[in-house]
Amino acid sequence: MFYRSLLFPDLRMTLDANDDDGLREFCEALHPAVVAEVIDELEPAELWRVLVSCDAELQAEIFGFFEPRLQIAIVDVADRKRLSRLIEEMAPDDRVDVLELLDDEQVESLLPLMAQAERTDIRKLLSYPDGSAGSIMTTEYASLPEEITVSEALDELRIQAPDSETIYYIYILDEGRRLDGIVSLRELIQAKRTATLSEIMHRDVISVRVDDDEEYVARELARYDFLAIPVVDNLHRLVGIVTLDDALDVLEEEATEDAQMQAAIQPLDESYMTTPFFVLAQKRGVWLVILLAAAFLTAWVMQGYEELQRSYVWMAAFIPLVLASGGNAGSQSATLIIREMATSEMDYRDKYFIVMRELRMALTLGAALMALSFGVAICMVPLAEAIVVAVTVFIMVIFGTTAGALLPILFKRLGMDPALMSNPLIAALVDVLGVIIYFSTAIALLGPVAKAVE
Amino acid sequence: MFYRSLLFPDLRMTLDANDDDGLREFCEALHPAVVAEVIDELEPAELWRVLVSCDAELQAEIFGFFEPRLQIAIVDVADRKRLSRLIEEMAPDDRVDVLELLDDEQVESLLPLMAQAERTDIRKLLSYPDGSAGSIMTTEYASLPEEITVSEALDELRIQAPDSETIYYIYILDEGRRLDGIVSLRELIQAKRTATLSEIMHRDVISVRVDDDEEYVARELARYDFLAIPVVDNLHRLVGIVTLDDALDVLEEEATEDAQMQAAIQPLDESYMTTPFFVLAQKRGVWLVILLAAAFLTAWVMQGYEELQRSYVWMAAFIPLVLASGGNAGSQSATLIIREMATSEMDYRDKYFIVMRELRMALTLGAALMALSFGVAICMVPLAEAIVVAVTVFIMVIFGTTAGALLPILFKRLGMDPALMSNPLIAALVDVLGVIIYFSTAIALLGPVAKAVE
Repeated sequence: MFYRSLLFPDLRMTLDANDDDGLREFCEALHPAVVAEVIDELEPAELWRVLVSCDAELQAEIFGFFEPRLQIAIVDVADRKRLSRLIEEMAPDDRVDVLELLDDEQVESLLPLMAQAERTDIRKLLSYPDGSAGSIMTTEYASLPEEITVSEALDELRIQAPDSETIYYIYILDEGRRLDGIVSLRELIQAKRTATLSEIMHRDVISVRVDDDEEYVARELARYDFLAIPVVDNLHRLVGIVTLDDALDVLEEEATEDAQMQAAIQPLDESYMTTPFFVLAQKRGVWLVILLAAAFLTAWVMQGYEELQRSYVWMAAFIPLVLASGGNAGSQSATLIIREMATSEMDYRDKYFIVMRELRMALTLGAALMALSFGVAICMVPLAEAIVVAVTVFIMVIFGTTAGALLPILFKRLGMDPALMSNPLIAALVDVLGVIIYFSTAIALLGPVAKAVE
Repeated sequence: MFYRSLLFPDLRMTLDANDDDGLREFCEALHPAVVAEVIDELEPAELWRVLVSCDAELQAEIFGFFEPRLQIAIVDVADRKRLSRLIEEMAPDDRVDVLELLDDEQVESLLPLMAQAERTDIRKLLSYPDGSAGSIMTTEYASLPEEITVSEALDELRIQAPDSETIYYIYILDEGRRLDGIVSLRELIQAKRTATLSEIMHRDVISVRVDDDEEYVARELARYDFLAIPVVDNLHRLVGIVTLDDALDVLEEEATEDAQMQAAIQPLDESYMTTPFFVLAQKRGVWLVILLAAAFLTAWVMQGYEELQRSYVWMAAFIPLVLASGGNAGSQSATLIIREMATSEMDYRDKYFIVMRELRMALTLGAALMALSFGVAICMVPLAEAIVVAVTVFIMVIFGTTAGALLPILFKRLGMDPALMSNPLIAALVDVLGVIIYFSTAIALLGPVAKAVE
């Protein structure tokens, strides 16, 4: 963003002067990520003019840094021949992401212009379901047979390098393309040049399966501090690799998605800035309507206590307080547990530990807030009423914390995303029962009608 | 977690049999990350026995995968000599993280046992402030002078490899250790063996400064899809590198911290599972108390309307509803904007765009919820009262959305973490003004007392 204001005027002038050499120089001088940021405010047709001034490889690199929306817009204005060339040049995982954005007609108009090998690769990658390891892996990895020497391997890597996403891990395959071992380029550089790969390779290769969840794959990569992790099919044949930079993107997206769900927003497919207004309004509105419905349920429950309220008018003043104390305690529990479930695997014992710990926490925090509430309330209302408020706060904190801890675990158990149990939703559920708890406590401690009508 | 139950019994037996060779074999057979997970439930003294069965390098690797709390516990039981050897073997960035956990006395008992070079390196890294690039960088990078050939460079890398965190990027330094260029090992492998590094290196090196914020550094790494980014001092001398796996850890921690702050929890220093109970209770309790204080403010404001409430008893039923509609809309805004600020840099224009967009969103969502509220409320209360509820919902959504959008931006402007503006805090602030809005609307539309006392 910082670069944009600095470089944009220069680009504008070069474009207006129809200076194609100038445009190429502009693109070549900067990192493709920076070029993409500077030019992304141009009209798609102008943007395409900038791109075609470079060679196809650089075009593909810059194009890969655009937001999906912009990529679609460029596809609409680009000529098929040059565009198919650009897409051929993209990394297999990135280009499949682009093709998945297009409609079938567009894909079918582009595929015939590409080489047979690329087409096969694309069709194969397109077949893996969204969210699987297959959908984020690339097929461009370096592989060698185990019988060659280190020296031969280094020569062979020179040939494979231009077509590999990384050559820092080399996968050793048998004749059936089954994954037999792995050796890092670092180890290769350090090894005796005459050693064979079978002598230096690691045979216990940590791999993931092509249908594993992308988030699990990303966490495995992060856990072992790998640069890439091999992806195998059910015959243990190597079908691709997932690199650390893609894993990082997956984890970042997942964190953003969880943050949105926690705040009762349907996850956005793109960034906040590029999501169209009405898509955003809908993804927020849906949940606001659901929460409004829950709030009307609370209102309806409260109407049932109208006689009591007429008798105990003082009670209304503390309704926001008792409800918030339950909702806030619940948000804390739910957020901690949802994030813990997202970032680490949990077994039965861990969940038991969490539930027990939250119960103890509920009692501790509930007691503390009850004492404080009593201390403040006694300055505002008579003793009996202060007791009703304090006792309700105690019950609400326990109830909110328990709901916040159990509901996400329950949701996960049911095979749903625990983050669906958003904080506002927990608060809304706590509210409904909260008013019942509040009024029941009042009835229990003060009786169903005020003894002396004031 | 899955491995633990499978492998733990085997380990237990080996330990009980005092079979040191067996322990060593156990550690060598598995990835250090897995070993760390399996053994982390042993008592520190037993754990140390497992560790010392391996050579110092493997000890250091396994030790690096433990949680900070466990590292401290092991330091307490380990003998100084072996421990100092283990720490010497750790990567410079990791070992500084460990030393930062210890008290000065412990550090001073360990340092004299280490080699002079390591000591100097440690003291230097310890001097960088927490949260800076310096605090997460490693000093073990591969560097070469520009005049040597590719072939010489490959030989030299064999020597540097064991002491470098990565050899996949090679930094080209002048005599004053100033950063002149960069070449990747991939490019080195592909280059003619007789070329000099000055011919193939990139001279426009993207770097960060040693006092840059760690989160900024992590985002830069992710943005350019680098494996590592060089860290320079103010004379442009190379002082270290930050690798992608460390960047990923920083971003994950940051996301966890933001999620906690959003739910009104003081950020935890360790994971939920390992944070001691009373530390956790305190980090949650502090905010619950602040929110309780805000809620008492709301109660106090409401007490001021007691006469009105006596006259309009029906109003109480809708208090949770009107307050929640403001709070929920505010949570959505705040969450979207805080995450957007965390994941991308924003200039003045972006902020203007966001504020304008949120105002429009507030009107749109407010109008929709007003219509819906009216539709439901009219089935529950007379027309005039339904209008009061619907109009209040409209104002509350606008007010909540605006507060949710503006407060994080304002906090950032004041140099504070925008995530401090947690969703419960926004809701609490909205509540205070919400009751005023609700009662004022009622007075405006229905008059200060009910016309016909029911």
